[in-house]
Amino acid sequence: MKPQANPNLEPASKERLRLWLRVLKTNRLMEAELRERLRLEFATTLPRFDVMSALYRNPKGMKMSELSRMLMVSNGNVTGIVDRLREDGFLLREAVPGDRRAARVRLTAQGIAEFEKQAAAHEGWVSELLSGLDAETCHLTSELLTQGLTLKDANNER
Amino acid sequence: MKPQANPNLEPASKERLRLWLRVLKTNRLMEAELRERLRLEFATTLPRFDVMSALYRNPKGMKMSELSRMLMVSNGNVTGIVDRLREDGFLLREAVPGDRRAARVRLTAQGIAEFEKQAAAHEGWVSELLSGLDAETCHLTSELLTQGLTLKDANNER
Repeated sequence: MKPQANPNLEPASKERLRLWLRVLKTNRLMEAELRERLRLEFATTLPRFDVMSALYRNPKGMKMSELSRMLMVSNGNVTGIVDRLREDGFLLREAVPGDRRAARVRLTAQGIAEFEKQAAAHEGWVSELLSGLDAETCHLTSELLTQGLTLKDANNER
Repeated sequence: MKPQANPNLEPASKERLRLWLRVLKTNRLMEAELRERLRLEFATTLPRFDVMSALYRNPKGMKMSELSRMLMVSNGNVTGIVDRLREDGFLLREAVPGDRRAARVRLTAQGIAEFEKQAAAHEGWVSELLSGLDAETCHLTSELLTQGLTLKDANNER
């Protein structure tokens, strides 16, 4: 990937706006496609996938409030998702000793197995959707986006 | 911007997944910030801004169904947004000759003036938030994202 001198380069503010619109569009198109594939292949949704993903990365379990903060959706939404995943046998609630109200949730063995299938498929889909870029160019593009953004993340998750 | 040989490069599918997570994060952080600034500076919302933006680019007006399709939100949402913008004096409805049900909406002079103020501020904010990248690097990053994505856009906007 060599950047080429570009005679049509616009002022920085215009190029930044164009990049932002491109990020929005990439996000929108890919998210719609991933949502649809999760539905068709696993009869699941993106928020369910995100909850399972967070729990997979936290095998000791998470409090509902932690899950909610990580996902930045309302507590109510997380509760509904967690209840359904529990009915499906993918997670369980455990009491926290000394704090009766703060239950923790974690994946069951069945939930772990199911998420691993979903995550492998998801990674394959993302790779297919971005197959116009090789590993090195992806790496570069990620770095450029990271370097370009002046905003810090309040939460510290990825 | 020189890509550097990277000894820690992961397989393409992992690097593509990482790029996707970076796009998601960039989108999330920037959108939250822009939403907040629109609220504070102009007492408006991102969907309202998007509707005004679409109408600004279509000075002859748009049908509600066109607006809705372009914005990919439900007709109901667009209706609510349009009603409020009309109350604020920023747009008007016009009957379509020969089709009683298909009203068109377009910006008023006041709406155009207001959107131009908002759009200038918005462009400045985006430029500030992405100030880690100069014009040429932004251009390159946009091109990489465009080139990388194998999905076509069903609507053909932007």
